[in-house]
Amino acid sequence: MEGATKGEDSVDQSSQRFAEALVRERVETRLAAAGASEASRGAAIRAMLHASLLGIDSHGVRLTEHYCRMLDGGRLNKNPQLRFEHRGAGSAMVDGDDGLGHYAAYHAVEVGMALAREAGVGAVGIRRSSHLGAAGAYALAGAEEGFVTFATTNTDAMVALHTGAQKFHGTNPLAFAAPVPNARPWLLDMATSSIPLNRVLLHRSLDQELPEGVAATPDGFPTTDPHAADLLLPLGGVDYGYKGAGLAGVATLFSSLLTGTTLDPDFIPMYGGTDISTPRNMGHFVLVIDPDKFAGSAVFGAAITTYLAGLRASTTRPGGKVMAPGDREWATLAERQTNGIPLDPDTVRFLDL
Amino acid sequence: MEGATKGEDSVDQSSQRFAEALVRERVETRLAAAGASEASRGAAIRAMLHASLLGIDSHGVRLTEHYCRMLDGGRLNKNPQLRFEHRGAGSAMVDGDDGLGHYAAYHAVEVGMALAREAGVGAVGIRRSSHLGAAGAYALAGAEEGFVTFATTNTDAMVALHTGAQKFHGTNPLAFAAPVPNARPWLLDMATSSIPLNRVLLHRSLDQELPEGVAATPDGFPTTDPHAADLLLPLGGVDYGYKGAGLAGVATLFSSLLTGTTLDPDFIPMYGGTDISTPRNMGHFVLVIDPDKFAGSAVFGAAITTYLAGLRASTTRPGGKVMAPGDREWATLAERQTNGIPLDPDTVRFLDL
Repeated sequence: MEGATKGEDSVDQSSQRFAEALVRERVETRLAAAGASEASRGAAIRAMLHASLLGIDSHGVRLTEHYCRMLDGGRLNKNPQLRFEHRGAGSAMVDGDDGLGHYAAYHAVEVGMALAREAGVGAVGIRRSSHLGAAGAYALAGAEEGFVTFATTNTDAMVALHTGAQKFHGTNPLAFAAPVPNARPWLLDMATSSIPLNRVLLHRSLDQELPEGVAATPDGFPTTDPHAADLLLPLGGVDYGYKGAGLAGVATLFSSLLTGTTLDPDFIPMYGGTDISTPRNMGHFVLVIDPDKFAGSAVFGAAITTYLAGLRASTTRPGGKVMAPGDREWATLAERQTNGIPLDPDTVRFLDL
Repeated sequence: MEGATKGEDSVDQSSQRFAEALVRERVETRLAAAGASEASRGAAIRAMLHASLLGIDSHGVRLTEHYCRMLDGGRLNKNPQLRFEHRGAGSAMVDGDDGLGHYAAYHAVEVGMALAREAGVGAVGIRRSSHLGAAGAYALAGAEEGFVTFATTNTDAMVALHTGAQKFHGTNPLAFAAPVPNARPWLLDMATSSIPLNRVLLHRSLDQELPEGVAATPDGFPTTDPHAADLLLPLGGVDYGYKGAGLAGVATLFSSLLTGTTLDPDFIPMYGGTDISTPRNMGHFVLVIDPDKFAGSAVFGAAITTYLAGLRASTTRPGGKVMAPGDREWATLAERQTNGIPLDPDTVRFLDL
């Protein structure tokens, strides 16, 4: 399977490339100038570089300019004071104090790991947060410390329900990661729509037909015409979109309903609206599991190693290539650490590169 | 969205119908005669009637004959003694003692709820279990008691990886349910393939083309010819099947890797093999969350009510019908409680109806 779930978001491969350290330094400079506290900007930089290095460019450092505008406009609190409320031996709520969402989300993973070390599992809801970038960054943060980790968020409505004709759910990602002994983690970070909105915009600019079953007209009719497309369709397409819509609902259930935060259609728009001063009260959810508290870390490590070896050795159709979730991202990481991060001209300009 | 995720498994609507109470009595008689303990057969009957009443006929009372054969052959322990090992304040392992899987799985939900009441969350792995029927039965059992509940299992390999040419994952269901004040729960019970194997067999017997992107030849080439189809394809089809394959991997991660039980390709076949005496050591996983330990039950109840009202009132394309996950199942339940459960001739014969 193709590991990249957002590789389709990659910037043009002909883009200029820049070394990770330089990009990091310039993003830091910009966010510091916009007034973001050291702790909150550190988290945002970590998450944006995760995305930029793994090939999820839509959630990478190109968002620096957007975040700076929102810090300036007042939507984002420049100096958020995170609060953490212990709700049970395995559960907690984190209040993001309307700061950069990455800060609250990474903190929730830390809280979840502390709970899981004792209780075996840590379930953490996050409220009063904002855009967190790629949800996989947080699943990965747990997996890198040895925990099976799930992270999700709801987002601005742009995906129709199955046979629906209005924007109802966001592209609501589900991200799972698991530690693998002596190897990079297994990492699945997937939108519950088939494609992101950026893909429609790309096809529109290239006047290129869309695949079947990924988008619809404003009246809800599936279309491959990128100029007619207004709604994204849920994963599963024309026939099985009720499954993708249900999964988008899972993201909303955990992120919004359990935390008492904003529903997908009720968000002040991330982009394009006139209000950039009111916080969006976005919710997320993180679940952290300690394998040691189930069959045990040794059993788990051996099992996932066997599972992945079987997966990678399995037969494919001619021309096929079977990959575990994450394999494509780890290849992109290695390539970009060598050759640099490709950036679009607007981002190059904003970061003064 | 269509709530029914396994409605396509329904038996022919021209089938004979029988009252729930009569069906329950005959299944009880058969399982008792096969020697299943009162507790284990009670759980199996509850789960099979869940499926038969909600329209998931492939997992309904038609399986009674299969379970009786397996009790007789020795694969299933007639008198399993469940064991429960507390692993942390929010985590536990249940040992099914090789009995009917429904017994271990319902017990795991009970254990999970007890943990969640204190810890906010209960994560329970299950080992040495067997076929559990419809995973949604266990998600529902938690939701009916006020808990957001997730249940999953891995199953016999019959689904290819994306671009793969061998049976690698099972149809590995993900089931989520959530309580709704003064209404039936929100209930999503979905296979991570687009269709079940039964659907291929049905199209084969009717000599009817399959939808695009749901099945493949033994060489891994997508086909709509039901006679050529040998592999199921993961949800997402030809273009986005890496997402469905990743989700199937999530089921395996939780059910098998965390519990140290059998991997999908390593199961002794549920059907058709010669060995019906060796236990299959199947694993499952249940996660139970107490909304009261996050934003609180009242906030959650109001939020899910608002969410569902918005969903059901949302606009559709002409001829479309938007349903929440579970809506179709609840309609089927009401209809079958009135008109009886439709059963195929083999099941009618076995149950002596």
